[in-house]
Amino acid sequence: MAGLTGDVDSSAPVGVCEIMKAMVLGIGAVGSVTAGILANSNEYDKVVLADIDFEKAKKAEKKISNDKVTAKKVDASDVDGMVLAFEGIDLVMNGVIPRFNYKIMDACVQAKANYADMAWDVALDDTPAGEVIQKPPVWHSLKKDAAFKEAGLAGMIGLGCDPGLSNIFARMAADRMDKVKEILVRDGDNGYVEGYDFAPLWSPETLIEEVLMPATYYAEGAYRKLPPFSGKEKFSFPDPVGDLNIYNVDHEEQETLPTFIGEVLGKGCDYCDFKIALGDEYVDAIKMLGKLGLDSPEKINVKGVKVAPRDVVAAVLPDPSTIGDKAKGDCAIGSAVKGEKDGKDVGYFIWTQLNHEDTYKRYGHSATAYSVGVPLAIAGILFAQGKITQKGVFPPEMLDPEPFVEMLPKFGMNCFEKKL
Amino acid sequence: MAGLTGDVDSSAPVGVCEIMKAMVLGIGAVGSVTAGILANSNEYDKVVLADIDFEKAKKAEKKISNDKVTAKKVDASDVDGMVLAFEGIDLVMNGVIPRFNYKIMDACVQAKANYADMAWDVALDDTPAGEVIQKPPVWHSLKKDAAFKEAGLAGMIGLGCDPGLSNIFARMAADRMDKVKEILVRDGDNGYVEGYDFAPLWSPETLIEEVLMPATYYAEGAYRKLPPFSGKEKFSFPDPVGDLNIYNVDHEEQETLPTFIGEVLGKGCDYCDFKIALGDEYVDAIKMLGKLGLDSPEKINVKGVKVAPRDVVAAVLPDPSTIGDKAKGDCAIGSAVKGEKDGKDVGYFIWTQLNHEDTYKRYGHSATAYSVGVPLAIAGILFAQGKITQKGVFPPEMLDPEPFVEMLPKFGMNCFEKKL
Repeated sequence: MAGLTGDVDSSAPVGVCEIMKAMVLGIGAVGSVTAGILANSNEYDKVVLADIDFEKAKKAEKKISNDKVTAKKVDASDVDGMVLAFEGIDLVMNGVIPRFNYKIMDACVQAKANYADMAWDVALDDTPAGEVIQKPPVWHSLKKDAAFKEAGLAGMIGLGCDPGLSNIFARMAADRMDKVKEILVRDGDNGYVEGYDFAPLWSPETLIEEVLMPATYYAEGAYRKLPPFSGKEKFSFPDPVGDLNIYNVDHEEQETLPTFIGEVLGKGCDYCDFKIALGDEYVDAIKMLGKLGLDSPEKINVKGVKVAPRDVVAAVLPDPSTIGDKAKGDCAIGSAVKGEKDGKDVGYFIWTQLNHEDTYKRYGHSATAYSVGVPLAIAGILFAQGKITQKGVFPPEMLDPEPFVEMLPKFGMNCFEKKL
Repeated sequence: MAGLTGDVDSSAPVGVCEIMKAMVLGIGAVGSVTAGILANSNEYDKVVLADIDFEKAKKAEKKISNDKVTAKKVDASDVDGMVLAFEGIDLVMNGVIPRFNYKIMDACVQAKANYADMAWDVALDDTPAGEVIQKPPVWHSLKKDAAFKEAGLAGMIGLGCDPGLSNIFARMAADRMDKVKEILVRDGDNGYVEGYDFAPLWSPETLIEEVLMPATYYAEGAYRKLPPFSGKEKFSFPDPVGDLNIYNVDHEEQETLPTFIGEVLGKGCDYCDFKIALGDEYVDAIKMLGKLGLDSPEKINVKGVKVAPRDVVAAVLPDPSTIGDKAKGDCAIGSAVKGEKDGKDVGYFIWTQLNHEDTYKRYGHSATAYSVGVPLAIAGILFAQGKITQKGVFPPEMLDPEPFVEMLPKFGMNCFEKKL
C-alpha cells in the first residue's frame, strides 16, 4: 500500500485564454465545495456562483468572501437564459441535479462554453432486470459529442468522486495492463450520525431511487440489468472502513468503463459492475418503502394536497446538508481491476478514503459533498492549466490520471493502492 | 367446542317508547352495517343516517332503500348542532372516529338521547412504558356516568367486536366462576388480499398508531404500560385461523375488564391483557415507519405543502373499504379466562370467527366492518326490546351476555367455546 503524496505547483496558470472565467451552476453541497476551491485557485480570475435561488448564491458569495466571485440567478431549465448567462464563461461546472444536464450542455454548445458535470441520470433507462440495455442513459450525454467537437469544446461528464475518481482509478490500473478482464467499482462507508437511527449522508431521494432500480452491469459483451439488491457479498474495505455488505446498485461507472477502457482504449473488459455498501437497516427500510409504495416520485392526493411519497420520506429524514458536522466514521471508494501484463495475471485495488469528522473539521463540508466537489474542481484547474485538451463529450477515464491524482493531496484527499 | 345457534323472535318489539328512532352518526364502513341492520329490524321505525358528508349519507340511504331511513348532515364536532339533530332520537349510534365521542355524548345528555359507540381513543394517555397509568383513557367516557344517570340515559361504550363481543365473552366466562384470575383477549386474522404485498384490512392510521404506542395491561392491582411489540408469542387460534404470532397492543378491553368484572361484579382479576396477531411483514413495516418518523400524525412541510406522514402512508396503501371484496382468510376474536369454581381451576376460551370471503359474499361488507357493526346493531335492537335497562355509562361486560350472544346467529355471526 502506498500513498501518492506528490503535490503540484499551480502558481503558474497556463490558461486557454488570458482571463479564466468559471461558472458553478447550482450552489448546493457539492457546488459550494467546487466554487470555494476555484475561487481560491490561481487559475481562475472570475467565478460566477449561479443558482435559481439567488439568495443561496449570495450567501455562498458572502461565505467565500473573495473578489473573484459574483452571484447570479440562473435557471437551469431555461436554455436561452443560460446561453446569455454563459457568455464569456470558459467552463461551466454543473452542480445541479442531473435532470438538467442536457439543457445545460446544449446551452454550453450555443454559448461556446466548456462543460463539466459530476453525475447523470441513470434512471433514464427502464430496461427490466435480466435483460440487455439497448442504450445506457450515458448515451443522452454522449450523443452531444459531435456538437461539442464541432464547437471545439470539452464536455467532461461524471467528474465527481464516484463516478469520477473511481473511473480515473480504473484507468490507472488499466494503464498498467495489456488486457483488462474485470473492473469492480466499490463504494463503502461506515459513517453514522449520532442521535439518528436512520440518516443517509447523501440525498435520500437519490439513495432510494438508485437502490430500488434494477442495477446496470456489463458482461458477455453487453450492458445488462440485475434485480435490485442483487449480488450481496461481504467486501473488505481498507481500514478503518472494514468489512461491509455490498450490493449491485445502478450507477454511472459501469455504463462507460467497458466501452471506453475496453473499446476506445482497446484494453478489453469482460466484466464490470458497481457495488455499494448498504447497512442492513438501510436495506430493510428501503425495501419496505418500495413495498409500501413510499418510494414513488409521482404525486398522489393526500387529504386534499398533492405530494410525492418519496418527497415525504426525504422530508422526515434529517437534511443531509445539516448533519455533515455530526457524521462520524470513514468512507472508501475505489476500483478493483484485474487483467494481464506480459502474460501474467495482475490486479490492483486503487482507492481514496476520507474520515467524516476530520473532513468536516478541516473543510467545513461533509466528506460526501467534499469528495465529489474536489475532483470537479481539480478538473476545472487542470482545464485552466491546459492539461485537459480533449474535445467532445467524454467520461473521466479518458483523462490522463497522473496530474489528476497528483493534485488530490493539495485538497486533503488521497489515493492508495494495493495489489490484488 | 359448541356453537350457540339459538335464534330470537324479534317480531314483537317491546320498545321503551311507542315510535323507536335511531340515528347512526358516521356512515363509514361500520356505520353502514349497523344502519342496514337497524333499518331492516322490526324494532326501529326510523333510522337517521347522519354524516358530515351529506352525499355519503344519501348514497347509504339509496343503498338501504327502505322508507324508514332518511339522510341528514350532522357535524360531530358541533355540540349545539348535534343537540338539535338528536331531538326525538331514542338512541344515537356513534360510527365516527373516537375523537368526537365526548362531544357526541355531551350532545346526547342535552338532547336526552341514549348513546352507544364501538371504540374510544386509547391514545389519550401518554404514560410511558414501564409505568402505572393514573387514569386510563376510558375515564373520559366514564366521567360522564353521573350525567347520563341523572338524565336517565344509557351510555353504552365499546360495543363493537373487539372491544364489544370480546368483553361480553369475558363476562360469560366470568359468570361461571367464583373468582377470576386472568382475562386474555386475543385477536387473530390470517386474512390477506391477493395482489397486494401490504394491505391492512382495518384503518392503516389506527393500526400504525395502536401498534406503536405503549400497550396497556393490568397486573398487581394497577393499569400499566408495556413497550410496543412486547409479549410476542405464538397463539393457537381455532381452525382455520391457526397459529399466529401475537403481541401486546393498546386496546380498549384491558382498560375496563379488571375494574368492571374484577371490582364492580366482584369476581376479582389479577391480570388482563390484549394481544393481536401481527404478521412479520406488518411488524417490520410498522417498526420501520416508526423509526423513520413516517408514523407521525403531525403535519410537516414537504416542498411547500403541509401533510402528515401517517396520512401519506395511509394514502399509498389500498383503502380498506375498497378491498373487502378481495380479502381471503379467516379471523377469530375471543377471550381466554381462567379462574376458580368450587375451589377448582377452570378456564374457557370463548370466541367468534368469520371468513372474509364468505362474509363479503353474504353481506356485501368486509368481515372487519361487519363484525364491528353487528354487535353495535344488536345493542340497538336489545335496547329497543327493553332488554338493556341500565342507566349511566358502562362497558359491554355490564350487559347480560345471554340475549346478546343468542342474537349473533341471526346475523351470521357465531360464538364458540372450549375449556382451557
